[in-house]
Amino acid sequence: MAKIIGENIPNMPWEEPTTDAPVWRYSQNPIIKRRPIENVTRVFNSALVPFNGGFAGVFRAETDNGIPYLYFGKSEDGLNFTFSKERIVFHTKDGGEYKFEYAYDPRVVKVEDTYYVIWCDGQYGSPVLALGKTQDFEHFEFISHPFLPFNRNGVLFPRKINGKYYLLSRPSDNGHTPFGDIYISESPDLVYWGNHTRLMERGYEWWQGLKIGAGCAPIETDEGWLLIYHGATQTCNGYVYSMGAALLDKDDPRKVKYRCGNFVLTPEADYETIGFVPNVTFPCCALADAATGRIAIYYGAADTVVGLAFTTVDKILDYIVKFKR
Amino acid sequence: MAKIIGENIPNMPWEEPTTDAPVWRYSQNPIIKRRPIENVTRVFNSALVPFNGGFAGVFRAETDNGIPYLYFGKSEDGLNFTFSKERIVFHTKDGGEYKFEYAYDPRVVKVEDTYYVIWCDGQYGSPVLALGKTQDFEHFEFISHPFLPFNRNGVLFPRKINGKYYLLSRPSDNGHTPFGDIYISESPDLVYWGNHTRLMERGYEWWQGLKIGAGCAPIETDEGWLLIYHGATQTCNGYVYSMGAALLDKDDPRKVKYRCGNFVLTPEADYETIGFVPNVTFPCCALADAATGRIAIYYGAADTVVGLAFTTVDKILDYIVKFKR
Amino acid sequence: MAKIIGENIPNMPWEEPTTDAPVWRYSQNPIIKRRPIENVTRVFNSALVPFNGGFAGVFRAETDNGIPYLYFGKSEDGLNFTFSKERIVFHTKDGGEYKFEYAYDPRVVKVEDTYYVIWCDGQYGSPVLALGKTQDFEHFEFISHPFLPFNRNGVLFPRKINGKYYLLSRPSDNGHTPFGDIYISESPDLVYWGNHTRLMERGYEWWQGLKIGAGCAPIETDEGWLLIYHGATQTCNGYVYSMGAALLDKDDPRKVKYRCGNFVLTPEADYETIGFVPNVTFPCCALADAATGRIAIYYGAADTVVGLAFTTVDKILDYIVKFKR
Amino acid sequence: MAKIIGENIPNMPWEEPTTDAPVWRYSQNPIIKRRPIENVTRVFNSALVPFNGGFAGVFRAETDNGIPYLYFGKSEDGLNFTFSKERIVFHTKDGGEYKFEYAYDPRVVKVEDTYYVIWCDGQYGSPVLALGKTQDFEHFEFISHPFLPFNRNGVLFPRKINGKYYLLSRPSDNGHTPFGDIYISESPDLVYWGNHTRLMERGYEWWQGLKIGAGCAPIETDEGWLLIYHGATQTCNGYVYSMGAALLDKDDPRKVKYRCGNFVLTPEADYETIGFVPNVTFPCCALADAATGRIAIYYGAADTVVGLAFTTVDKILDYIVKFKR
Amino acid sequence: MAKIIGENIPNMPWEEPTTDAPVWRYSQNPIIKRRPIENVTRVFNSALVPFNGGFAGVFRAETDNGIPYLYFGKSEDGLNFTFSKERIVFHTKDGGEYKFEYAYDPRVVKVEDTYYVIWCDGQYGSPVLALGKTQDFEHFEFISHPFLPFNRNGVLFPRKINGKYYLLSRPSDNGHTPFGDIYISESPDLVYWGNHTRLMERGYEWWQGLKIGAGCAPIETDEGWLLIYHGATQTCNGYVYSMGAALLDKDDPRKVKYRCGNFVLTPEADYETIGFVPNVTFPCCALADAATGRIAIYYGAADTVVGLAFTTVDKILDYIVKFKR
Amino acid sequence: MAKIIGENIPNMPWEEPTTDAPVWRYSQNPIIKRRPIENVTRVFNSALVPFNGGFAGVFRAETDNGIPYLYFGKSEDGLNFTFSKERIVFHTKDGGEYKFEYAYDPRVVKVEDTYYVIWCDGQYGSPVLALGKTQDFEHFEFISHPFLPFNRNGVLFPRKINGKYYLLSRPSDNGHTPFGDIYISESPDLVYWGNHTRLMERGYEWWQGLKIGAGCAPIETDEGWLLIYHGATQTCNGYVYSMGAALLDKDDPRKVKYRCGNFVLTPEADYETIGFVPNVTFPCCALADAATGRIAIYYGAADTVVGLAFTTVDKILDYIVKFKR
Repeated sequence: MAKIIGENIPNMPWEEPTTDAPVWRYSQNPIIKRRPIENVTRVFNSALVPFNGGFAGVFRAETDNGIPYLYFGKSEDGLNFTFSKERIVFHTKDGGEYKFEYAYDPRVVKVEDTYYVIWCDGQYGSPVLALGKTQDFEHFEFISHPFLPFNRNGVLFPRKINGKYYLLSRPSDNGHTPFGDIYISESPDLVYWGNHTRLMERGYEWWQGLKIGAGCAPIETDEGWLLIYHGATQTCNGYVYSMGAALLDKDDPRKVKYRCGNFVLTPEADYETIGFVPNVTFPCCALADAATGRIAIYYGAADTVVGLAFTTVDKILDYIVKFKR
Repeated sequence: MAKIIGENIPNMPWEEPTTDAPVWRYSQNPIIKRRPIENVTRVFNSALVPFNGGFAGVFRAETDNGIPYLYFGKSEDGLNFTFSKERIVFHTKDGGEYKFEYAYDPRVVKVEDTYYVIWCDGQYGSPVLALGKTQDFEHFEFISHPFLPFNRNGVLFPRKINGKYYLLSRPSDNGHTPFGDIYISESPDLVYWGNHTRLMERGYEWWQGLKIGAGCAPIETDEGWLLIYHGATQTCNGYVYSMGAALLDKDDPRKVKYRCGNFVLTPEADYETIGFVPNVTFPCCALADAATGRIAIYYGAADTVVGLAFTTVDKILDYIVKFKR
Repeated sequence: MAKIIGENIPNMPWEEPTTDAPVWRYSQNPIIKRRPIENVTRVFNSALVPFNGGFAGVFRAETDNGIPYLYFGKSEDGLNFTFSKERIVFHTKDGGEYKFEYAYDPRVVKVEDTYYVIWCDGQYGSPVLALGKTQDFEHFEFISHPFLPFNRNGVLFPRKINGKYYLLSRPSDNGHTPFGDIYISESPDLVYWGNHTRLMERGYEWWQGLKIGAGCAPIETDEGWLLIYHGATQTCNGYVYSMGAALLDKDDPRKVKYRCGNFVLTPEADYETIGFVPNVTFPCCALADAATGRIAIYYGAADTVVGLAFTTVDKILDYIVKFKR
Repeated sequence: MAKIIGENIPNMPWEEPTTDAPVWRYSQNPIIKRRPIENVTRVFNSALVPFNGGFAGVFRAETDNGIPYLYFGKSEDGLNFTFSKERIVFHTKDGGEYKFEYAYDPRVVKVEDTYYVIWCDGQYGSPVLALGKTQDFEHFEFISHPFLPFNRNGVLFPRKINGKYYLLSRPSDNGHTPFGDIYISESPDLVYWGNHTRLMERGYEWWQGLKIGAGCAPIETDEGWLLIYHGATQTCNGYVYSMGAALLDKDDPRKVKYRCGNFVLTPEADYETIGFVPNVTFPCCALADAATGRIAIYYGAADTVVGLAFTTVDKILDYIVKFKR
Repeated sequence: MAKIIGENIPNMPWEEPTTDAPVWRYSQNPIIKRRPIENVTRVFNSALVPFNGGFAGVFRAETDNGIPYLYFGKSEDGLNFTFSKERIVFHTKDGGEYKFEYAYDPRVVKVEDTYYVIWCDGQYGSPVLALGKTQDFEHFEFISHPFLPFNRNGVLFPRKINGKYYLLSRPSDNGHTPFGDIYISESPDLVYWGNHTRLMERGYEWWQGLKIGAGCAPIETDEGWLLIYHGATQTCNGYVYSMGAALLDKDDPRKVKYRCGNFVLTPEADYETIGFVPNVTFPCCALADAATGRIAIYYGAADTVVGLAFTTVDKILDYIVKFKR
Repeated sequence: MAKIIGENIPNMPWEEPTTDAPVWRYSQNPIIKRRPIENVTRVFNSALVPFNGGFAGVFRAETDNGIPYLYFGKSEDGLNFTFSKERIVFHTKDGGEYKFEYAYDPRVVKVEDTYYVIWCDGQYGSPVLALGKTQDFEHFEFISHPFLPFNRNGVLFPRKINGKYYLLSRPSDNGHTPFGDIYISESPDLVYWGNHTRLMERGYEWWQGLKIGAGCAPIETDEGWLLIYHGATQTCNGYVYSMGAALLDKDDPRKVKYRCGNFVLTPEADYETIGFVPNVTFPCCALADAATGRIAIYYGAADTVVGLAFTTVDKILDYIVKFKR
């Protein structure tokens, strides 16, 4: 029996499975529907963390001008959300307001007592990763662009390992990138980054044959870091994004212990196959309850709504090993 | 309170809103469903005008060989249509029959006592605008190709301004054009055209970031010309077409007084997100009732069916100003 | 009254039409839904034949790693299927096991007392046709790659004509080929092939303007060979695959007697317009009952499920002639 | 014996042929070499006319920032040129200075007592034709953009025909256009343009199979208008531009009497095959002497220098007819 | 000491090397210059064989309309050629004249007492291999299109091996194919072909990293079949074609004994780096003298002229082995 | 009079100008011709520094298999070079040999007493910058990949500024990148890098309109850092690379004081316009003599040979200011 290393989240959403799939959908999906905020068309590809007994998060909100920005949202139960009416403002060190071109696909990761936000930022019209932080989800500070353009899907590990921060990312191009692998980088201070190596390459399996990118912040278990990521394939009618999973070595996260050759979830429900970008399931965060081993995965569906899916640490690790490449 | 300048259309379709959106869908959409004519697969992107106490129009009808042609349709209530069994025939000045390669996305505009039809025509295998006219919707005459190829989405103003006709268009390329702005041209006589300038450029707002094209014939109001148009964005799974709005100066339609940074309608309903070309809302004509300020917009949905949406001159002008760029 | 030349299939699925369409859908479609086999995501684009009083076939099964392979399936009624748990194994002449990169879009054709299977095979990473055979659907033998790469959609005629085997195919490129015509080739022995000519070219009709490829094995009638094929068009949101039909000369199958300018079926149902690849109807086999003239067409829908559609030899031949090019 | 209709140009450059080619190179080519003006890298694709007993012209001068502008040049003998030190300034009707984004490939045509200049202009970042005029080559006036973007290679006829001005052009796209045909348009006043039709289509002959565009102003002869144009083909290492020729009906220039299937000159000399854009011969103007029937063609070579080639009205018309398509 | 198995060709061109390169250029290159035939612009990529004490061959001649056709040429010394004034006519079996769309890159191979010609033919607008034959270079017969489109660079082996003919080819796409490997196929009768396998794949070495294709007919030696082929790389300014070499097993030509990782010749001379398609050296035939081991390679240079290069069977086999992959 | 801050290099190559160009070519160019090393086809895009009274450097050597590697070269006079017979071996910290996929476009920069080498490295098949060092040009150590892929043209500043190392680079894509700007990054230790900003964007001037990349290591002057870089434009026949220049603030190299709108050298000589990649002048290093202000620029020409060009600190700074943007 594998164990999740981390906090207990007793009020985390949960539903028992009705099939033997490794990851199963919440029956009341989507939990965030179209137009949940005034002047916002769609919320998806977003991330939350336990906070003050409930949950707080940063959400990709596509405003009615079609440009994505970051909004704050909170919830008591992880299912029903209250959102800020305005975009989150990040301040720079000198007290000024950080100016966005746009911002999308945020992740939120708690390291020690700070909540770090990583998102895809527009800089000179090019996609680049941005890093910010907050202690209270009221005041947000912009830290830096950790890498050069072009990059997307930055995911921080939830604790330092051997004294270093670790950041996953997917070097990209300037458009709807038709390739992509997951890289890993480290930093002593969140300002200077180095030792970049490729963690995992897109796969020969078709569902992840075009590109892969990190999804949820890695979940620490006694057997290693559980990484839930996305993989994309290209059909003659566009890209299809599925969910994948791998297990990284606990002490050396550059080592992939197991990587699942099968997806763990692929677009099948109506809210995944119909929408602004059909056939997308895009995981961005997961809640993991150490007491029970339960995991709740939040994912963007069809770039239109937010869905929720469940697994347990045992089920998913068994599946990863059973169908390892 | 803004006023529509024009005729009263008491039998125009109407439904009160149930949300505070600037433009709202008709609850019985789509009003023209798949296969409304024998040997015709889909009718969409079409235009009508008040005529003889009812309504008459020209419809893009994709026949069962996949090629679009123009059909005639009429309606008592603007909701239920009777179509001609055969394509509209246009005659040339010398009495011959104008020969189509194909014809799509017609607009119909009444100027003085004549109904002008503008559509996208195939000429030498390239898209080009064509202009025709009718007085009675029984006899149609072909006038000219006002511009060189490659061009689409021609929309005439409903009256001369300072003695000139004005025509909006979108210079294009030879395929599924990945760019496009709205240009305005003038003519003393509908034969010779000149003074071409760009009226509006595709926007930095993402929903209209790829290309824009005129939609409905401009609606005259005491505050200016209300232009409802389409804007497209490119996702990794194709183009998404939304509806936009702007207000042009009454006396100098080359001046954009206000342009809305937000779309006023974007594909969300099933009949807009599913179909031959998913995620398209493409406005081609509007009825505007001077007595009440009500506006009914007819739009193609998913290149498959025709939808109807409503607004009032006050609501949409307020929205344009509120979210002006 | 046209006659089907072949066997009687009294237990073939059948349903009377409720419209006057040339081909009509089975009311209980799709007959094979998502995930019909353990660890298989989707079954589609597959083929069956009468066998031992029921039906047996070879199915394209997209496994949970996204790669397609061939599975065996059988059915008493042509509607409900039992599938093998494992992929079909083909043996080579020397008794070894033929090794697949992947395999998709199989056809099965009975010639004399042997069932031939033709599919799209991966060879050196390129698509190539493969030919195999079985007598009993238990032991399968790999014969050869009849052509050089790059090729797809190979369909064998169900009997020799003037002492030669005939094979239809669609020369392709290495990706999601944006062009394609149907070619015909002949062989004295199924090993050496020659006399390649183009049978039919993609059409000026838009539904088949991008590419065409053979679908079901030609059905012999007293008026010629009935060929049901697919045609694709390119919209700004991807390819749309419809079903077409033609009649070839009985004694010289290189002669096209009639070719229908209209499609006979185009994606309209939800299971055809929504799925892994939206807007695909892809015929791969047909059952034809000589006694009644009934024809049941099996087709992949949206690269996700299998649908069934019906016609009769009279209806479809009348329609082909009525709308011949 | 065909006759040139027009003026005598006794001081025109001339050299007798040494081969039986229809068009032959000047032995001292190139006549304008690299860097003929301070801060100008290359002069090519330029046009001149007889003026005041010598010659005057407008030249495409690629300045040392790589952007092309128009410069004035004059010559006593048509071989040695003196250039202005600064770009030509065009004034608008209101007396202001017309502002260029860039300007290239000018043609100069005398109609009645005015010298018209047509060039490819940048407007809103897109290529568009521009029309200007001068009486004295000292004061230049900007008239208009006769067409919408995207267009290039505008060539005016040297006199009105039946009371109308005629303008050839090549509708284009926004880049290194991989297609193109020659269109013809007419105008009563040089402001309003209409009656656009395609004059000549790119050819099945490979040298002109990719695109064609008008070159020199049509030369009037008693047998019709002699049009010298360019045709391009695409090799795996880029485009190759050759010179072609056709004869248009004298009274109805929309009628092509003869078009030569062979090129009349193709890049072979070092200064044509080596340079900024290898393998380009691009005719932009011709001098034609009525007294002798001699023709001198000025052409850009390799987008780097200016070359000169000769023919006579008899030789070229004979060749056009001999190798007519 | 390796031996060439074949005839003695005492009048073959020859020149001793002045460097230690494996293949060296003839000092009087190019041997066929621009415009060697009336109305023909360029001759290149052509093939000859010993015939009647001299040499006869089939030449790619790009006529002045830019379209390539096949011309006959003969020579006493292999250096100076006399060409036919008209294209070669091929007759079909029924005595008619075979109709070309175009024809290029011929090879000529003598098998037993017949000279076979293989070229790239246009069929339905697509590239396809064509096979013809002659006994006397006066009467030519068209045999067949051995394969389906799209294919180029067909090269026949000069004798049957184990009773079968062998044909090399490069499956292609419909344009300037950016990929390509060499395949091998066999036939009992030159009509029906089968057993297609890939002989050699494009290499990781950059000069042959984009595509490879067979060049000269394989030369039989006591150590195996010497294959001289072309490899292409893609720079930002187009493709560069170099010459490569490999040794195939004598009894089983599907076995590659050695393949050289280095090119044996790459474009360096002016006539190779300047021309219609810069940077092309494209071998199409070789003369091999059994008495001396001398080899003369004829190659197209820059798609403009014909060059000649020399080696000996010892030198080239040593080099292949020394730099084998 | 501006001053170069740095060492005296009395034996540096030098030649007085014969024109008033800002940068002029060495009359004996190219100084390194084709095939200067056994089994090496071309040497170009290389860098040297003063060393032990002469010069030592690292050279891009394209071996006869077409793959580029790094070779060592030395020279007494900077004009005639002796090269190593084998590639340079870099050792990793643990003493192993660093394994190259390939390596190109090296720069060499002396900081304090160490010579740093930066090149474009292949990692996982993607271009990435690599950093190494040597003290003696005999033992080379691999340090790190400072950035994520995809990146090229890394150039280090020759001293720390305010305690930080500065590195210029050009974020790229995975192919012949059709875009590119120069970025600047800093590091306390050559391992961790951060504070990435864009230093200069590609220009509206056409010669640098497609992409720009750093060339020589910045030369320190009393007026700031002189940066010689490359700019590329795209013609219809490929890219053309010119040489540009800018002056950066001495204390804050992120500030561009002046940037020249004109190129300072563009391909014009035969060895620049003809070769493996025609029309390339690509500066990679410069020698600067503090005593005289003389500067010698080494540049790759046509990806085939090495050229040398001269300027003085006064001439080039004057020119930058005179033609500043």
